[in-house]
Amino acid sequence: MFELTILGSSSATPAFKRHLSAQLIHHHDRLFLIDCGEGTQFQLLKYKVKIQKIDAIFISHLHGDHFFGLPGLLCSLSNHERTRPLKIIAPEGLPEILEQLFRLSDTRMKFDIEYQILKSNVREKVFENNGLEVYSIPLQHRVYCNGYLFQEKSKPGKFLSEVAKADAVPVQYFHLLKQGNNVTLDSGRVLKYEDYLGPSPKSYSYAYCSDTRYIPGLGASLNGVDLLYHEATFMQDLKPKADTTYHSTAREAGMVAQEAQAGKLILGHFSARYQDLTPLLEEARSVFPESYLAEEGALVKLK
Amino acid sequence: MFELTILGSSSATPAFKRHLSAQLIHHHDRLFLIDCGEGTQFQLLKYKVKIQKIDAIFISHLHGDHFFGLPGLLCSLSNHERTRPLKIIAPEGLPEILEQLFRLSDTRMKFDIEYQILKSNVREKVFENNGLEVYSIPLQHRVYCNGYLFQEKSKPGKFLSEVAKADAVPVQYFHLLKQGNNVTLDSGRVLKYEDYLGPSPKSYSYAYCSDTRYIPGLGASLNGVDLLYHEATFMQDLKPKADTTYHSTAREAGMVAQEAQAGKLILGHFSARYQDLTPLLEEARSVFPESYLAEEGALVKLK
Repeated sequence: MFELTILGSSSATPAFKRHLSAQLIHHHDRLFLIDCGEGTQFQLLKYKVKIQKIDAIFISHLHGDHFFGLPGLLCSLSNHERTRPLKIIAPEGLPEILEQLFRLSDTRMKFDIEYQILKSNVREKVFENNGLEVYSIPLQHRVYCNGYLFQEKSKPGKFLSEVAKADAVPVQYFHLLKQGNNVTLDSGRVLKYEDYLGPSPKSYSYAYCSDTRYIPGLGASLNGVDLLYHEATFMQDLKPKADTTYHSTAREAGMVAQEAQAGKLILGHFSARYQDLTPLLEEARSVFPESYLAEEGALVKLK
Repeated sequence: MFELTILGSSSATPAFKRHLSAQLIHHHDRLFLIDCGEGTQFQLLKYKVKIQKIDAIFISHLHGDHFFGLPGLLCSLSNHERTRPLKIIAPEGLPEILEQLFRLSDTRMKFDIEYQILKSNVREKVFENNGLEVYSIPLQHRVYCNGYLFQEKSKPGKFLSEVAKADAVPVQYFHLLKQGNNVTLDSGRVLKYEDYLGPSPKSYSYAYCSDTRYIPGLGASLNGVDLLYHEATFMQDLKPKADTTYHSTAREAGMVAQEAQAGKLILGHFSARYQDLTPLLEEARSVFPESYLAEEGALVKLK
């Protein structure tokens, strides 16, 4: 299982029942939150998410529409007796904000927050577990900002026991070969695991790119990503406004997806000036046909 | 017009579709917000409130469930081009929190915030306009906390022109008498305005008391209040928990209303442990029959 739930798709301010930026990643039995605009905890409740299962929260940047929901969510986790540490991956400044808020409101968290503070302007691994690696994606916004690339680890293919038996491989070495280890027999014969494994199952990837102006080359650096979320705050007729505010147009989001040869593009972070989003969708599709609008609450299955 | 809209009635954390503390006062053409828990701006949107008409925001205390919605609301006011100053009446610490948040998120408000910072433990006037005076109500909570008393200014009664005419009052003095001024004629005769005015129309009052433990004497100090909102986080069987957390029970809220000889009591700030609130209502009504549950979105008309 590798699923994305969009919790908010509005930029800056809520509009037309669209909430502020937040997304939930469900990978096998682990949950991850990307950004946490105000009201995210209400959205999590609405969609019946078991919030205590969240392992890590990734904050793209410190504009309010991307993190003003974080203090309240943390308080609710604590009120609901979380004791398990929570990882927060975020830019500099967030720990100071939370510490001052909690100090002045005399609030004590019942769990530890393990911060990973990002400062780099090059891609780096920011999180890893058994099945997933998460990398920062340096973006270009008015403040320091990173997107995040969720990349499944590749797994060994199916063990070809018939091949191994035909090759007279002793049964006690099957386990090592299955796990991707070469084996040297007492005779000196080397068994290469590749010879006994089928093709690796596909590893899926998801890239979250918000907020950012259009970055030439960003798509190429995400080559083959299965699912791309790219902000599309404006349409191309407001390109000058997109430039001055360091945002992207729907067309530019489509261009990034096209460059990345992505499987699918989801547009989001819509300006409150657009009630009807169809023109944004059409603009992106004119460049990249597999474009879709972020739809709050809808589940996007990667696998 | 003097109306109250409850925007949130949950304590600490959202539960059973109940939002966090926030209330809107609509007095003639002016709007005032009391507390601003996370999600308040969504509630204001839902109930189609013209947020730019808010003149002042009164924050009771710095627990997150009473003010974590404030930064987002301020950003939205600014995004929607507010330039008119906004008054915020709040405890010490709030300006530092907002200034740090805005600095680290590189956010500039397009309007000035005029803070009135409360430190006193005695009742004081904290706001005044043509028709209304607002007083702090010192409460007893785990952190420094004030409720707020909204008191309409008394207005002169109807001018009794027939009485004035019968009394041979020269017409040119009617206006002064109407406005509540005594008049000394050239003859030395003194006209007392009370003699020419009917009874003053009733001035209505509303008291917001949250969060607080039960305070003996609080009710007496609110004698005759027309509408009282008093927190009722727990029921009487959890009185020990109410004591240690400095909250009140539904019965205690009823006692305060009884002592105040209030017109009506509204209970709110309910613990997330209560899905069905009927038992809280019954507990309060056993002491004070004119008790009601805070119902989000419902309009309570004082006049």
